[in-house]
Amino acid sequence: MTKKAVILVSGGLDSATVLAMARDQGYECYALSFDYGQRHRCELDAARQVAQVSGVTSHRIVDLDVGWMGGSALTDSSIPVPDAGTNDDSIPSTYVPARNTVFLSIALAWAEVLQAQDIFIGANAVDYSGYPDCRPAFIEAFERLANMATKAGVEGSGFKVHAPLIHMSKAEIITTGTALGVDYSLTSSCYQPDAQCHACGYCDSCRLRASGFADAGVIDPTRYQAGK
Amino acid sequence: MTKKAVILVSGGLDSATVLAMARDQGYECYALSFDYGQRHRCELDAARQVAQVSGVTSHRIVDLDVGWMGGSALTDSSIPVPDAGTNDDSIPSTYVPARNTVFLSIALAWAEVLQAQDIFIGANAVDYSGYPDCRPAFIEAFERLANMATKAGVEGSGFKVHAPLIHMSKAEIITTGTALGVDYSLTSSCYQPDAQCHACGYCDSCRLRASGFADAGVIDPTRYQAGK
Repeated sequence: MTKKAVILVSGGLDSATVLAMARDQGYECYALSFDYGQRHRCELDAARQVAQVSGVTSHRIVDLDVGWMGGSALTDSSIPVPDAGTNDDSIPSTYVPARNTVFLSIALAWAEVLQAQDIFIGANAVDYSGYPDCRPAFIEAFERLANMATKAGVEGSGFKVHAPLIHMSKAEIITTGTALGVDYSLTSSCYQPDAQCHACGYCDSCRLRASGFADAGVIDPTRYQAGK
Repeated sequence: MTKKAVILVSGGLDSATVLAMARDQGYECYALSFDYGQRHRCELDAARQVAQVSGVTSHRIVDLDVGWMGGSALTDSSIPVPDAGTNDDSIPSTYVPARNTVFLSIALAWAEVLQAQDIFIGANAVDYSGYPDCRPAFIEAFERLANMATKAGVEGSGFKVHAPLIHMSKAEIITTGTALGVDYSLTSSCYQPDAQCHACGYCDSCRLRASGFADAGVIDPTRYQAGK
């Protein structure tokens, strides 16, 4: 029997790569995305396209109305998106409180219902911009929790949280995905794309992405805003 | 400065008691409820009333559209609600996959935005119906995760997850809440109330509640369906 997996698919480059890796490992893939009031809603359009071309069994977008909380430049329009580099040690304003914890929790619920034992997330500790919930220790802590929190965990089958990109550079991610046939032109990484979903080229996420393509020696298929 | 706390308020007896305990400990209370497609929507009306009479600073009901997942008698109308007792060891069909993990994750996000360090949940290990996410080990695992997952956890202030009912019997909970002035007539525990939110008297939750009032020697203010 084919093994099922739930894959968190944001519409960005990393999760598109993770989805391709899970498929390559023979999993039947259930893609999960979130509409959480993110400014960069182009991500959701990208998530739909990525899921569709990847032949997932099901793709669900969960409405998660947490924009009222504020607290992040990605959901609160009164906080500017930084265009500085990411080389200082502080956690930037694009951090969304407890985001990966919330996303993994809902992925866990779905995995339990599907009787899937595997959850994939594109967390990355190298280019992680200082987000605490992208570190290996976080992934391990979530996996421990998952096996404590659920009927499936307690009764034996158990869950594995896969974060296959966690120690990869952006260039390694792009090289891996390119070898697996990922169409990165469908993905969206920019924190502040324009109405046509063209990337700004200046935010942290755009810069990491662009240098990843350069370092990998792969042509960058990103559509940038005119004049940038 | 008054300390803030996020309190998970379901509309049931347990969380109403926890809210009263947090208030009694001097916390400024932020109540959080979820509309997750539960059959027993009377709970949400009860949650509103409980929050209102308790003088919380804010009460938020988060829409969480996970009913499509199915997998629980509480959200899937094709699965019957059991009216058997809870004295066998198996996890019943009213278990909602990963529910407390999801609820605590969103509470954690809000707590981080509010700069609150304290989260209260009415989990109870004595009358817990075999739900894995009501055990002390689960609460501890979530607290560890919370301090790994967040900016506030990593940068030092840290989170505490309070589950003050965890070792109490239903009678002890009722005695504690009664002493703190909780109006249990506002709360709703039944898994299958009628249109007027009157309790069935037969489901696991009704039985636990009724024997709790009897054991505590407190008059049961629950409104039951006619003829039951």
